[in-house]
Amino acid sequence: MKPIITLSTDFGTKDPYVGAIKGVLLSAIPDASIIDLTHELDVFKPCNALPFLKDTITWFPEDSFHLVIVDPGVGSDRIPLQIHSPFGWIFLPDNGLPALMNEWFPNLSFRRIPYLEGQPEKERSPTFQGRDLFARALIQQAKAKKGTHLGTPLYPDALTRSFDPTPSGMCRIWNVDHFGNILLGCHVSSPPERILLPDAPMIIPYVRFYQDVPVGNLGILINSSGWLEIFQREGSAQKLWNLQKGDRIRILLEGGEYKSL
Amino acid sequence: MKPIITLSTDFGTKDPYVGAIKGVLLSAIPDASIIDLTHELDVFKPCNALPFLKDTITWFPEDSFHLVIVDPGVGSDRIPLQIHSPFGWIFLPDNGLPALMNEWFPNLSFRRIPYLEGQPEKERSPTFQGRDLFARALIQQAKAKKGTHLGTPLYPDALTRSFDPTPSGMCRIWNVDHFGNILLGCHVSSPPERILLPDAPMIIPYVRFYQDVPVGNLGILINSSGWLEIFQREGSAQKLWNLQKGDRIRILLEGGEYKSL
Amino acid sequence: MKPIITLSTDFGTKDPYVGAIKGVLLSAIPDASIIDLTHELDVFKPCNALPFLKDTITWFPEDSFHLVIVDPGVGSDRIPLQIHSPFGWIFLPDNGLPALMNEWFPNLSFRRIPYLEGQPEKERSPTFQGRDLFARALIQQAKAKKGTHLGTPLYPDALTRSFDPTPSGMCRIWNVDHFGNILLGCHVSSPPERILLPDAPMIIPYVRFYQDVPVGNLGILINSSGWLEIFQREGSAQKLWNLQKGDRIRILLEGGEYKSL
Repeated sequence: MKPIITLSTDFGTKDPYVGAIKGVLLSAIPDASIIDLTHELDVFKPCNALPFLKDTITWFPEDSFHLVIVDPGVGSDRIPLQIHSPFGWIFLPDNGLPALMNEWFPNLSFRRIPYLEGQPEKERSPTFQGRDLFARALIQQAKAKKGTHLGTPLYPDALTRSFDPTPSGMCRIWNVDHFGNILLGCHVSSPPERILLPDAPMIIPYVRFYQDVPVGNLGILINSSGWLEIFQREGSAQKLWNLQKGDRIRILLEGGEYKSL
Repeated sequence: MKPIITLSTDFGTKDPYVGAIKGVLLSAIPDASIIDLTHELDVFKPCNALPFLKDTITWFPEDSFHLVIVDPGVGSDRIPLQIHSPFGWIFLPDNGLPALMNEWFPNLSFRRIPYLEGQPEKERSPTFQGRDLFARALIQQAKAKKGTHLGTPLYPDALTRSFDPTPSGMCRIWNVDHFGNILLGCHVSSPPERILLPDAPMIIPYVRFYQDVPVGNLGILINSSGWLEIFQREGSAQKLWNLQKGDRIRILLEGGEYKSL
Repeated sequence: MKPIITLSTDFGTKDPYVGAIKGVLLSAIPDASIIDLTHELDVFKPCNALPFLKDTITWFPEDSFHLVIVDPGVGSDRIPLQIHSPFGWIFLPDNGLPALMNEWFPNLSFRRIPYLEGQPEKERSPTFQGRDLFARALIQQAKAKKGTHLGTPLYPDALTRSFDPTPSGMCRIWNVDHFGNILLGCHVSSPPERILLPDAPMIIPYVRFYQDVPVGNLGILINSSGWLEIFQREGSAQKLWNLQKGDRIRILLEGGEYKSL
């Protein structure tokens, strides 16, 4: 069975970085199926990738391999990790994101990437360890005998923490999507009875479907991935309420169960 | 033989939507070959995708599977379709695009997607039926015994019509491409003898090759896919004649055979 | 073994051009693994693709196939080429880039693409020979008996030259990457002792790692692919020194070995 390898990076798509990693992976595993998830993760802000990963890699089969590279600390001594999960192995630096993943994803086990045979020294790869370290660690794990867990275990307590939690009663905007929908950092497992947004420039009804409001109107609903989402029906909510990724707004929820980012 | 699955969506490439669909597909069909066609179809305007599809999916083999998601009506009661074609199965909502495809593509047969085992209820997928309905319908068809056509037949007359035809003597701009070439909604099967563009800011000669005009000049030709195309040699035609996608211009053709969008 | 086929083009990602080529390739070689490297090569400037190719296709295995399409001369009589290299076959027009590749890549052998059975005449493909000629040449080579080299040999002296060399003491900016790093056209095989940038708006220290300067400061280092790179630690160097791709700056290197673009 050919391995499935996904790529989630902050590399953009015009530079050689993505292609170089694909070449390294395919030279070692020619029958790999390489899947682009995105190359537009926020640069320099690894923790921002959490909801993206929650909504993508968790859909993959357990024998997948995921390379997740947002690496402002490339060349420093941050620990390189490989994480075992119910949806496959994940390879990434200890940049704050792994600790946050541990709060949101079930059944992760963290391991320090071992010395890699043939790997360039840090001195020889000062700026591109996605290619020279993490891709090679992925290859080494993919080629290991099934059931082998390479690397040495690491307790989650040892992970770097850098995420700034949102105060109670506030909600972080984690994304304004391609359509202009505003995604709130509030993940719902049981729907609340009411949702109030005191900062909104107009009343925003809490509904179940886009069609529950007239074309052009705003609404808020629980989207298909469980996030609260402010939308304009057949338009861009952001054009009516100019929120940006990273902004925080006040929110009041009555009842329900949810987890805040 | 591993199935070829193409993706054409309006999702953009920075959000989790594309990756989620890839995960669902690969969890069910691990050896699928997933091919990105584009994720930049016009949002909220399904019919605009017609020429894109004509120039892409028609090149694929008959055992391909194509997911085509521009779905402003997600969560409404529009009918989910799977279309059998000489270039494979196509999965998309009945949003106006299928009726238009029926006018442009040969030998389509339309079927209503059947109930899908394990599919989330509409209530449980209010905003992302690309992942929760259309990808699952594709999987179900791909796993069916060869020759099986799932779903129930639908007469083309029953399809939703929403495309606004262009008046005679006018021509719709269906694309301004990455190079600034202006693509006209006029598909030529037999070349006309003359082409006149009364609205043009300068005389635009009708030629056969880009090299038939001096560098920097405008020309119009029949491109390799049969569309009329206004170009600037080694430049952007749009910078000289500021037309936008969706604009209409007057056009006079003498002789030839063509079909208007 | 399924063939690996990479695509590097200037097509962008919103138009049908990439998808059409993928369809043609997969119709002929259904089990091909098609790998997007980029579709954002500079339009109309084939030689600008040299460093991109150096940093990507050279990582691929020797039995790969690479389609490299920047083709402002499409429809003219420029010679279509297929190049044999240690990292696979490369298919592209003789647009200046092949001659430049010959100066930078080892062990290339150049061949004129032969007549292709079933290939549309030039008259029938005036604007899209990426799909109608180069993809077909790739297919023909991929299907040939192993060891066969199709086409007729061409001496490198016969290749078109169009690259404007940079005067000594000057250095060309070949890229400003997604992060705002400024990539200089100076490829280092043995590190110099000192690097001076007389045109810089401030002193830029020559270091080994991003972490060798404080957050927000500029530095210059040799990146993991051997290029000189001006960076701002955790920021965009271009915002502090507004250089654009194609600009030239003065540079003084003491010692070391390097090659200039």
